[in-house]
Amino acid sequence: MSETKTSSWLKPSLDWLLIFVPIAIALRFIPGLNYPTALFIVACLAIIPLAGWMGKATEHLAEHLGQGIGGLLNATFGNAAELIIALFALSKGLEGVVKASITGSIIGNILLVLGLSILLGGFKFKEQKFNRTAASMSATALTLAAIALLIPTIFHLVADNVPVAQGGWTPAKEQNLSLAIAIVLFLTYCGTLVFSLITHKHLFIGEALQGAAKSVGHEEEEAGEHWSKNKSIIVLIVATSFVALISEFLVGAVEAARGALGFTEVFVGVIVVAIIGNAAEHSSAILMALRNKMDLSVGIAVGSSLQIALFIAPLLIFASYLFGTPMNLEFTIPEVVAVFASILIVEQICSDGESNWIEGVQLLSVYAILAILFYFLPDMHHAATDAINGAAAAP
Amino acid sequence: MSETKTSSWLKPSLDWLLIFVPIAIALRFIPGLNYPTALFIVACLAIIPLAGWMGKATEHLAEHLGQGIGGLLNATFGNAAELIIALFALSKGLEGVVKASITGSIIGNILLVLGLSILLGGFKFKEQKFNRTAASMSATALTLAAIALLIPTIFHLVADNVPVAQGGWTPAKEQNLSLAIAIVLFLTYCGTLVFSLITHKHLFIGEALQGAAKSVGHEEEEAGEHWSKNKSIIVLIVATSFVALISEFLVGAVEAARGALGFTEVFVGVIVVAIIGNAAEHSSAILMALRNKMDLSVGIAVGSSLQIALFIAPLLIFASYLFGTPMNLEFTIPEVVAVFASILIVEQICSDGESNWIEGVQLLSVYAILAILFYFLPDMHHAATDAINGAAAAP
Amino acid sequence: MSETKTSSWLKPSLDWLLIFVPIAIALRFIPGLNYPTALFIVACLAIIPLAGWMGKATEHLAEHLGQGIGGLLNATFGNAAELIIALFALSKGLEGVVKASITGSIIGNILLVLGLSILLGGFKFKEQKFNRTAASMSATALTLAAIALLIPTIFHLVADNVPVAQGGWTPAKEQNLSLAIAIVLFLTYCGTLVFSLITHKHLFIGEALQGAAKSVGHEEEEAGEHWSKNKSIIVLIVATSFVALISEFLVGAVEAARGALGFTEVFVGVIVVAIIGNAAEHSSAILMALRNKMDLSVGIAVGSSLQIALFIAPLLIFASYLFGTPMNLEFTIPEVVAVFASILIVEQICSDGESNWIEGVQLLSVYAILAILFYFLPDMHHAATDAINGAAAAP
Repeated sequence: MSETKTSSWLKPSLDWLLIFVPIAIALRFIPGLNYPTALFIVACLAIIPLAGWMGKATEHLAEHLGQGIGGLLNATFGNAAELIIALFALSKGLEGVVKASITGSIIGNILLVLGLSILLGGFKFKEQKFNRTAASMSATALTLAAIALLIPTIFHLVADNVPVAQGGWTPAKEQNLSLAIAIVLFLTYCGTLVFSLITHKHLFIGEALQGAAKSVGHEEEEAGEHWSKNKSIIVLIVATSFVALISEFLVGAVEAARGALGFTEVFVGVIVVAIIGNAAEHSSAILMALRNKMDLSVGIAVGSSLQIALFIAPLLIFASYLFGTPMNLEFTIPEVVAVFASILIVEQICSDGESNWIEGVQLLSVYAILAILFYFLPDMHHAATDAINGAAAAP
Repeated sequence: MSETKTSSWLKPSLDWLLIFVPIAIALRFIPGLNYPTALFIVACLAIIPLAGWMGKATEHLAEHLGQGIGGLLNATFGNAAELIIALFALSKGLEGVVKASITGSIIGNILLVLGLSILLGGFKFKEQKFNRTAASMSATALTLAAIALLIPTIFHLVADNVPVAQGGWTPAKEQNLSLAIAIVLFLTYCGTLVFSLITHKHLFIGEALQGAAKSVGHEEEEAGEHWSKNKSIIVLIVATSFVALISEFLVGAVEAARGALGFTEVFVGVIVVAIIGNAAEHSSAILMALRNKMDLSVGIAVGSSLQIALFIAPLLIFASYLFGTPMNLEFTIPEVVAVFASILIVEQICSDGESNWIEGVQLLSVYAILAILFYFLPDMHHAATDAINGAAAAP
Repeated sequence: MSETKTSSWLKPSLDWLLIFVPIAIALRFIPGLNYPTALFIVACLAIIPLAGWMGKATEHLAEHLGQGIGGLLNATFGNAAELIIALFALSKGLEGVVKASITGSIIGNILLVLGLSILLGGFKFKEQKFNRTAASMSATALTLAAIALLIPTIFHLVADNVPVAQGGWTPAKEQNLSLAIAIVLFLTYCGTLVFSLITHKHLFIGEALQGAAKSVGHEEEEAGEHWSKNKSIIVLIVATSFVALISEFLVGAVEAARGALGFTEVFVGVIVVAIIGNAAEHSSAILMALRNKMDLSVGIAVGSSLQIALFIAPLLIFASYLFGTPMNLEFTIPEVVAVFASILIVEQICSDGESNWIEGVQLLSVYAILAILFYFLPDMHHAATDAINGAAAAP
């Protein structure tokens, strides 16, 4: 019954907002209609129903595959858009924007998406439960990723104080260090896939171990609407393609309008791109939380961050060699602090396998605090490290 | 029976030590009697029975209101004294002392007060249990606060390396950043109050969910002495007023005697003021631990830190605008490290919902290590950041 | 039955590899045979069966004393070798190597030894359980140690910016701060011993509290081979002596071959010495994990790190006064980062009292990432801190 109510609340928007998809395409491709601000607004509206369909398709597919794998699939399709955008930016040499959007995607998923899911789910249910082991595995993988992203920054900060002749910092060393770390992350991600899809899939399918959440998993089956596996897959692919397309319009429009809005490049990368790029995860994760399927909700949000950090980031390092402009893994100090702070708080919230609305508030508060930091921060990439070390090396 | 023994051990001191209250008042207000050292000792002795009465009244009030709200009340009344002292210092422009005492109160409550409570409680009971969900919520709120206190320091460190023309650090930006963060903290605190007093008060009232600790909660009811709600409230208010009054004497006397004792301003703020200002929480939290009411004990200690960080700190920022000398939230690096270290260790100790004496030892060890750091640190506020960045910007 | 299989897999190597023990001794002491590289390889091969016998003896002794005390014993005997090596290096004034090997031992035990144990144990058993309270106590003690090792570095970084006349950094202050912290660590270690051996030994003996792991503890008793307490002790002492002796050969040989292999001093200390020095813990901890005695396995790995940090490190500080060249506790920034990162991840893995193979992969990944950092880092001790502060103080 709660399921029917949720659907009927979302369905109307799904229907009429789809009008904005062709409008966005028209605004983007018809030569005369060059209004970035209008494109931005229309694309925002268009992405909502698409993300909704994507969430719906993933949810139906998840019924066939189990909650955890459904969450993984969702994260994969959600991040496909981000990967395409990042590759596009990388090919243009916008390394700083790519890194800022990696940071933004990691913190956006675990703070904003998970925070809103827990908050809204918590308004409906006093206490929600999820598989602690699966959530903990993901949170630990994120801690590993945070350490990996910290190391190149520490290396630069420390090795820059030693003369090059005695083994001090050089861009080539930073690059090799980054490549080695990217390989470790990539191998760990492969291990994580084997764990969640093969050896321990029972933890992610969900129904097996949990005494408490046993009966809540399949309420939508009684609600009548039941898609076949093929229908789910086709809708998922079509919706994801459109989400990727419209996401790219959005990024282009945002970049064009940046000056007018007075946002810095870092703020756009970390906050704006990340919010838009994660719209799909947003609607899916919140829908799951409202249906009390927190396993799937946490799986989408944390799994998406995990995938960005352990899979997309190394992939971009590898891809950067193809473009002839190798990218390293050195992030700015505020980016590293933001990732660590996010993971510290999400680990505490995931470690007990239950959630309530105040935990959603806490995640959103950390997001707000980090957004404030990136709003006030001047535009720079690695300026902090360079300046400190430059000064240290100068005399 | 254990209750009677505890009371009879505390009662004699309650009775005769109250003599020092009028003596302290005399030493403070009679013009000829200007002996700061004597005032310091007398005030120390006077505050013990007052804090004892405060703890007694809170405990009786807690019986009427449930353990968690009792803990909140106790924290509120305990921090009333600190708020008054901080406002007094702020009006005199002593920003560094105010920040040091915020740091000291946060770490003092979760390391010293909670550490002593767990240690002494652990000597009496092999293992003590408390509500993990409530303790975790508070620990997560503290992590959030630690992140909030870290951000302005990171902002200064990083933005200072960028020329002002390109958006670099200015005192006005730091102030705006601090104000925005203070507003987020304040709103989060309001959420925390709604959570603990309205939507999830059952977690804080204590009897509801805990299977293990069910029977230990109300032993003092059989001990005969039972206060009415009104009597509890009146005694609590009177005792709190005297604690605030005598606390102020103490701070004045300490500040006067600082040079003679060879303490730095930071050490006085972080260690001395914090120990004295938390005397009330001390005696209450330890009393509760000795009665195996760890829910109340943890609630007092962690709740008090939480209130300092999420409520008193933002309130002082807001109040500083009234005094015409806006205070920012930028703490020194050792202060930020101390807060993070404290919260890291307390989170680990609270996350399992049970305590034993070695955990008390571990909290007290961290307190000792931080006290050693602040003892050896030279007097400076923001000197570290300024110097590093000054050097970086200089050439 | 699984026990018999494991033994028969290990037994052949125990028998014939012991040949390398006399060969290593010959290579070391016969004047003409000065081939460091050969000595290195032979010593590596020789240490494997010795460590195997040590593990066997500890296991049999553990049967008499309970799992936890067995783990403590094992850690003590494992670290005896490291203490001897460190004292030897300290007497030669090699402070940097001693600190690097302290760092390496801490991270090596909790990342490499525990990681391999969890990974290999996890290949055999889908899920392994251990006493969460005991593991948490150790992880919290390690957090305390990490904070303690951070403080002297923070002190140098911050106090160095203040002129000496106003209380700024001096070597003597750093030394006194370090000594005070070492005393706190040592006292905490004494407390930990009282806790684990006297007041809460039931947590470490293992059979008492755990419902889940009740029946798996004693399978080897049915396997026929049962040693007396005295036999276990004698074999343990003899094997440990030989492990210490051969370990020293190894360190000598590694140091001699360092230039040829192109490793920095820090890399040798942190990675090579630590891997070799922990060979004993390695084989014991892995053997226990393969027998599903995770309590003992976690006890060996985490207990060994804990003992290095809380006991060996302070002991070396105290001992350094006897050698007339006082050592302080100031570690380099990469060392502090490595210790914090390791403890952060191990705390997450230990906090739920269960393990599976992906957690082993995660620990090994962090180890690999830190090894990469130390491989690329140039040779320096305190260079980072000195350079930053030197620059800051210069103008």
